[in-house]
Amino acid sequence: MKSAVFESVRNMAIEEVPMPQIEKDDDAVIKVVRSCVCGSDLWPFRGIDNKQNHSQNPGHEAIGIVEKVGPAITTVKPGDFVICPFTHGCGQCRACRAGFDGSCTRFADHFSDGNQAEYIRFQHAQWALVKVPGRPSDYSEGMLKNLLTLADVMATGYHAARVAHVRAGDTVIVLGDGAVGQCAIIAARMMGAKKIISTSRHADRQALAAQFGATDNVAERDEEGIAKLLDASDGGADAVLECVGTDQSFQEALRLVRPGAMIGRVGVPHDQKISGESTFFVNAGLAGGPASVTTYDKAVLLDAVLKGEIEPGKVFTTTFTLDDIQNAYEAMDRREAIKSYIVVSDAE
Amino acid sequence: MKSAVFESVRNMAIEEVPMPQIEKDDDAVIKVVRSCVCGSDLWPFRGIDNKQNHSQNPGHEAIGIVEKVGPAITTVKPGDFVICPFTHGCGQCRACRAGFDGSCTRFADHFSDGNQAEYIRFQHAQWALVKVPGRPSDYSEGMLKNLLTLADVMATGYHAARVAHVRAGDTVIVLGDGAVGQCAIIAARMMGAKKIISTSRHADRQALAAQFGATDNVAERDEEGIAKLLDASDGGADAVLECVGTDQSFQEALRLVRPGAMIGRVGVPHDQKISGESTFFVNAGLAGGPASVTTYDKAVLLDAVLKGEIEPGKVFTTTFTLDDIQNAYEAMDRREAIKSYIVVSDAE
Repeated sequence: MKSAVFESVRNMAIEEVPMPQIEKDDDAVIKVVRSCVCGSDLWPFRGIDNKQNHSQNPGHEAIGIVEKVGPAITTVKPGDFVICPFTHGCGQCRACRAGFDGSCTRFADHFSDGNQAEYIRFQHAQWALVKVPGRPSDYSEGMLKNLLTLADVMATGYHAARVAHVRAGDTVIVLGDGAVGQCAIIAARMMGAKKIISTSRHADRQALAAQFGATDNVAERDEEGIAKLLDASDGGADAVLECVGTDQSFQEALRLVRPGAMIGRVGVPHDQKISGESTFFVNAGLAGGPASVTTYDKAVLLDAVLKGEIEPGKVFTTTFTLDDIQNAYEAMDRREAIKSYIVVSDAE
Repeated sequence: MKSAVFESVRNMAIEEVPMPQIEKDDDAVIKVVRSCVCGSDLWPFRGIDNKQNHSQNPGHEAIGIVEKVGPAITTVKPGDFVICPFTHGCGQCRACRAGFDGSCTRFADHFSDGNQAEYIRFQHAQWALVKVPGRPSDYSEGMLKNLLTLADVMATGYHAARVAHVRAGDTVIVLGDGAVGQCAIIAARMMGAKKIISTSRHADRQALAAQFGATDNVAERDEEGIAKLLDASDGGADAVLECVGTDQSFQEALRLVRPGAMIGRVGVPHDQKISGESTFFVNAGLAGGPASVTTYDKAVLLDAVLKGEIEPGKVFTTTFTLDDIQNAYEAMDRREAIKSYIVVSDAE
């Protein structure tokens, strides 16, 4: 079968690799229908971190059809249409029961990879997979896009808003205008935020943010941007959703909270340094990490998507085939695409 | 009038200083009835930080009688019995309205000092002072001790539990066995925590913790202590209340939370270094800072004390006169006293 692989910085390739098999009792093998490229995949592509090994497939988002299941799987069966979260919680440990399946304590190997491929082996499938009614062919392409965001970015944006305790009437600043930042805007609106300030310099992303619920946008950066954000938030936000992960973004978030407000951070941190004093005297709070994808999908997000209440799939602005993986990465790297959508197989 | 002053490391003295006066319209002058020594006063006394100036009076906790008020003060009048919080919120800015008057944005000079003295000038007295019914002579010495804790430590312990979102049924670990840690135990119990694990090596502090609601105690330190705390908390607490402020204590807190749990930190941080990665993958949250003393006193704590529901005054284990200030510090420094209580004037 075909799989995308990371060849080297700025080079993705498609290789023929063996079909994945059931290796453990709680595995499932999924035939991928749609996959995509994540902002976090761009870190190694850009050579910013060197955690990605040669020949690894960094994809961790997919929707597809269950092909085979291991003997321990009773919740899905071959032929079922499923969302494949990037997290693989057990649903039973204290982390999962508290709604933090992104930090499941039972399964150490609880993140996905290999999803930019025709088939994937999905570990710990019993609780983590999210079943979608019907077949892919029952849905419009727009709805398939919505469903695919439930593998990561919509749940991750929702996580930022949840851990920052966004409440009805709040003023919220969203740092990051990628797919996760855009989905965080949707989440803040779902939770009743009154004023949602996006921070994009790009017209297409500003427009999408506004469509998702942003009431204001501050395009400026650095000191000018901070001054405008403080002005727009009446001196500081009730919640800052940090959807980037750089130290710069984090330090900016710290300056944008009103005392007692929370920073919800979901961008994978890259050399973020936090001094105890910097957060203490303003009573700034900080929470976040890998999202609780399965929890949110099952509790809130799948329902909201299927009812048409939210349309996070609009973050997919450009469509590619799996063979065209290099261009899918490049389009995001050049910010021509907000998020690249990959048609892997027919929606049967 | 007499005032305690910081002379040099390990040396407190009593000096004759001018009576404080009304300098600003919203000042009040308070005749101090009872004051005390705070754990944070020990940092300069021990020479660990050099933020304390010679001749400064570090005291920031008192109860007393209003002597004079400035023309802007309408909420209290001479003769009123009041608690003097260490914080001086305005009650109206967004921080105060959100319940974070310890980080009031209107008043920059919103912390107390000078309270180990016969009289104090209390700035921004209009909202911050907490009126107590009757006169000091109406209350037992035990109740005066309870009331004095509402100037700082009981409210600070309550803050740790509040920002860590302690909920009914939770397992809570409290780091720090001083007065704030002890009061954090009271607060965790008020919020319905089921299992409260204290961390004292001292028999008197273990006994007080148990009296306040601790269900378990782990006396061991370092790796052995962490292993026992993880065991006692079934793999990690739902909330860790960090009432010390050292980097060591903070790093320990990070290892003691279950995924998604919050660390409520109220110990003034001393060189705490937090890496973004260390909190991210376990979804650890972090919040805290100067307590919302006036908010908690008026909303919850004064009532709980007057009804006899909580007895935080038991943290005062040794009584001194103001003249005996050096011994009051030394008793805490040597851990002979949990907290030193200072009788400044008669409870008339």
